[in-house]
Amino acid sequence: MSDQGQVRGLVSGIEPPYYAVVFTSIRREGADGSDGGYGETAVLMRELVAEIPGYLGYETARNPGGIGITVGYFRDEEAVAAWRGRLEHQQAQRRGRAEWYEGYSVHVAKVERSYGFERKQ
Amino acid sequence: MSDQGQVRGLVSGIEPPYYAVVFTSIRREGADGSDGGYGETAVLMRELVAEIPGYLGYETARNPGGIGITVGYFRDEEAVAAWRGRLEHQQAQRRGRAEWYEGYSVHVAKVERSYGFERKQ
Repeated sequence: MSDQGQVRGLVSGIEPPYYAVVFTSIRREGADGSDGGYGETAVLMRELVAEIPGYLGYETARNPGGIGITVGYFRDEEAVAAWRGRLEHQQAQRRGRAEWYEGYSVHVAKVERSYGFERKQ
Repeated sequence: MSDQGQVRGLVSGIEPPYYAVVFTSIRREGADGSDGGYGETAVLMRELVAEIPGYLGYETARNPGGIGITVGYFRDEEAVAAWRGRLEHQQAQRRGRAEWYEGYSVHVAKVERSYGFERKQ
């Protein structure tokens, strides 16, 4: 979108209000070696979420062997609900609980204010 | 707090509404070797934010050489404002813009709903 800046993958410049869905997780120990479809599923989810009307962007980071944080940004509650209801997403969540995660938290939040900084080249 | 679960560092089990402040950043190239106070400042900020009344927790992850995501959780807007107004925090932000970051974004968001999963031992 023309009003969004991008500093190498940062989501910025979206006019509030919008929604941020914060997903934080701890992988199961030993789940990194033979990932049993985790990596493939992560790629598929990233493709599928981009198809949701009102999807605005996605950021993800993981400390090696530790906590991972993924944030999805959406225009409104309807877009968040559409992603929550997507069948493949629900299937991935079930596999996550059965196989991949020690634990996770999801925080669905309405962004009231945002700002950023971009270094001048 | 007694009503909060903790799976190895995940912030979970807080009753909404509460606030999440999502800080995403890209470090400057070359800034990892000689960090010029970045690491010390990060540790200090983590200590200082914990002194803010209404502070609920903190999670951080960074892809090696790539994006970092830090989420701070606060009980209400007053707690977010107290952290924003903390002098050492403002000084750290100035150093971040001058020295450490290629770019960053901050999203201040009111959490409306949250849930989680914790593997049974």
